[in-house]
Amino acid sequence: MELYSQEFFMNEALKQAKIAFEEGEIPVGAVVVCKNRIIAKAYNQTEKLNDVTAHAEMIAITSAANSLGSKYLSDCTLYVTLEPCLMCGGALFWSQISQVFFGAADPKRGYQQIGPSVLHPKTKVQGGILAEESTQLLNEFFKKLRK
Amino acid sequence: MELYSQEFFMNEALKQAKIAFEEGEIPVGAVVVCKNRIIAKAYNQTEKLNDVTAHAEMIAITSAANSLGSKYLSDCTLYVTLEPCLMCGGALFWSQISQVFFGAADPKRGYQQIGPSVLHPKTKVQGGILAEESTQLLNEFFKKLRK
Repeated sequence: MELYSQEFFMNEALKQAKIAFEEGEIPVGAVVVCKNRIIAKAYNQTEKLNDVTAHAEMIAITSAANSLGSKYLSDCTLYVTLEPCLMCGGALFWSQISQVFFGAADPKRGYQQIGPSVLHPKTKVQGGILAEESTQLLNEFFKKLRK
Repeated sequence: MELYSQEFFMNEALKQAKIAFEEGEIPVGAVVVCKNRIIAKAYNQTEKLNDVTAHAEMIAITSAANSLGSKYLSDCTLYVTLEPCLMCGGALFWSQISQVFFGAADPKRGYQQIGPSVLHPKTKVQGGILAEESTQLLNEFFKKLRK
């Protein structure tokens, strides 16, 4: 049970996405929450790090594990502004994370295209949290990119 | 066209897997080859790095991108001793890697359980290269672990 609302934490993830936006990265942000406390914040850095694996979720998982001193995130919740891709879904499976809350759906590359079996059966999932804000930021980014 | 054989490069990946074995990690190794040259070598380090994302393939992809100065591995081949999982399959998709050659199949967590569509449609795949050697190493590891 979180003391803060889902919207509170998703807003923190959105702040991360906005940092990505400012840095010319596809604006996706994530935070990992454990016992009502943010233990990791990350944003997409594929351009800056020149690394296709540097999605917000991947960096957040690694950072959260460092913070906990445990590679399993069994009592943690990931808030991410966009539905995770297959790579990130696969990483979330391995992490045994307790909950995944995401903002906008990603009908093109989201893991749910493949099926819910991507994540660990114990992981609770909910999408659509502040989805509009996330979509708006992404649309703004791609609009700017096309100019 | 590689001057060295598939077996030559898979043997290099097996050497990496053996390092993992010696370090108490699930023995999986990988190399990335570009223009007949190994540009990245890696082995599974999930225990040492305390990080579920530290699979051999993930480290090899990041390392190869660093070596090339490009995040896309369009002219590269990954040799990995075990069929990649979904996370690694998803990362290989993003990398647009040209070829993926793996050793042993992983009927439990291999990406092929989900479907070939995990990888990029341009990526050529072949499994079964030095599969016996890879399986033997894995079996030896788990036998030792259970003792």
